[in-house]
Amino acid sequence: KDKGCELRRRAKFDDFVLDDDGRVVGVTIREEYRFDDKLYSDDLENTSGTKKTLKANKGVVLAAGGFCRDKAFRKLQDPRIPDDVDSTNHPGATAGALLKAFEIGAYPVQVDWIQFGPWASPDEKGFGTAPILTQQGTFKYGIAVDIRTGKRFMNELADRKTRADAEFKILREKPGAYPITFADTKMAFKDLSEEIIQKGMGSGKIVGECATLDDIAKKYGVPADALKETVKKYNEGVKAKKDEFGKQESALSEINEAGPFYVIRLSPKPHHTMGGLKINTKAEVISSKTNKPIPGLYAAGEITGGTHGASRLGTVAITDCIV
Amino acid sequence: KDKGCELRRRAKFDDFVLDDDGRVVGVTIREEYRFDDKLYSDDLENTSGTKKTLKANKGVVLAAGGFCRDKAFRKLQDPRIPDDVDSTNHPGATAGALLKAFEIGAYPVQVDWIQFGPWASPDEKGFGTAPILTQQGTFKYGIAVDIRTGKRFMNELADRKTRADAEFKILREKPGAYPITFADTKMAFKDLSEEIIQKGMGSGKIVGECATLDDIAKKYGVPADALKETVKKYNEGVKAKKDEFGKQESALSEINEAGPFYVIRLSPKPHHTMGGLKINTKAEVISSKTNKPIPGLYAAGEITGGTHGASRLGTVAITDCIV
Repeated sequence: KDKGCELRRRAKFDDFVLDDDGRVVGVTIREEYRFDDKLYSDDLENTSGTKKTLKANKGVVLAAGGFCRDKAFRKLQDPRIPDDVDSTNHPGATAGALLKAFEIGAYPVQVDWIQFGPWASPDEKGFGTAPILTQQGTFKYGIAVDIRTGKRFMNELADRKTRADAEFKILREKPGAYPITFADTKMAFKDLSEEIIQKGMGSGKIVGECATLDDIAKKYGVPADALKETVKKYNEGVKAKKDEFGKQESALSEINEAGPFYVIRLSPKPHHTMGGLKINTKAEVISSKTNKPIPGLYAAGEITGGTHGASRLGTVAITDCIV
Repeated sequence: KDKGCELRRRAKFDDFVLDDDGRVVGVTIREEYRFDDKLYSDDLENTSGTKKTLKANKGVVLAAGGFCRDKAFRKLQDPRIPDDVDSTNHPGATAGALLKAFEIGAYPVQVDWIQFGPWASPDEKGFGTAPILTQQGTFKYGIAVDIRTGKRFMNELADRKTRADAEFKILREKPGAYPITFADTKMAFKDLSEEIIQKGMGSGKIVGECATLDDIAKKYGVPADALKETVKKYNEGVKAKKDEFGKQESALSEINEAGPFYVIRLSPKPHHTMGGLKINTKAEVISSKTNKPIPGLYAAGEITGGTHGASRLGTVAITDCIV
């Protein structure tokens, strides 16, 4: 505001306005727009809001984010994503603005490179608290298990892509067979604040409490003998300082086989779309018609492509835009 | 011709002609167009040909192929591809038609899924003969070696993606350090016809002839002792019927360490672009504006996306089009 900027909420970008030379001179938007997360494709189905045209003083900066919540478009790019998985993003994370930029000639870059959070839960919406409970809890002090076999299937602390691919493999073979992660209650959340634990346990939906391994087996439909064997084998690896799946030695600690346990179901959630628009170092959007900037159009953030490679590292998505 | 069709050669698609309702009613082309494989981006730089507009009787079928020869666009999608690598495709395999379809609202599908031929040679243009000499020759009866270390680095008969990724890793670490594949001359080409062998050996550029392992080491800059150790180790694996890289037992045969040898350099070449336009079962191109067909527009072949998954299997790219 101090700089003469006005922030308009609930204003959704619909399309670009171009002049006769192909310069972006404005946008059409809808005011009082309400994203509806019950729609399969918000961009195609949502008719809310009132149309309006805005003139740009100097140019338009696209910062519409990624498309992790766009069930129609993300599935086109990665057919592994089940429709019943939401996303760690807000409901407005759709591909509409990206596709409109392609229509005026912007280069698509690596649009199907989608990063999934392998630490998320199918038992809560959005990002939620499971990512903290697993990543800093049960993944570190416990294990993840394929409920069909009772066996481990990944290094619980591998990179995001490796883990998400391993979880997707299970869900593709048997839809709905969400793997579980667990640790004994003494260890599971010992590094976490009381606030986070309360938030995670509060609903009673994300974290299951089981007295014994037999209880886990019963509750989640896991072969009990195989599950016990898996914990035993893991503990032997801890003692030998050599994990079967290459888990880091510093993160190896024995699981108390006697229990009790905290258990969380796992589902990889679309978290970040690495692909998008080609920009130059001035954040100008590059046209495939000329390999030069589209006059008047800039982009920043997740809607741009090619910055982060195939699997973005955590916390590095802070992009600057010079206009 | 019998069906009233006229084939026009050297006619390059430039853009679509739409009517007021957004129906594709024709195309603009250039006649007497000459693709120029010396250009970095033929689509952007080539000014040859004479412009012409063609009216479509019923509709337009896009069958412009993939973009393996489009150095600018393919690098946007996969930055690993060196500019000095050509492709197994003809010079007209550029992204121009695909990008024009995005401009009229076609959905992009998995555009960056590019398949590379891991059996190609940097010492000949295009597909060439090396793919046969390696795939049915030295890969089967010999090994592939990283010239920097003298060691093997892949199962020579793994799937295309696995092998291309392994070769790219080497070329990324040291540009120009093309790995080599070799077998002893008695075995190397024994399954191949005299015609193919003549074609491959004829130029003297693709197949190197070396009397001993020391000669290979000298000619290709490989550490000699490591190379000898590698062959010895491979032969031991053959005897034990257990290959270090999991090469199929049926393809294991000893290399005569005494030589002489045939040697071929390896470079993964862009071979097929799996991504492209979204079509339905009637081959109609789907619009991202409506999720319905773009009136008057059809597509077939490599320009379509989503059919073959992440790594096309050999020989299955024969697509039918019902118009």
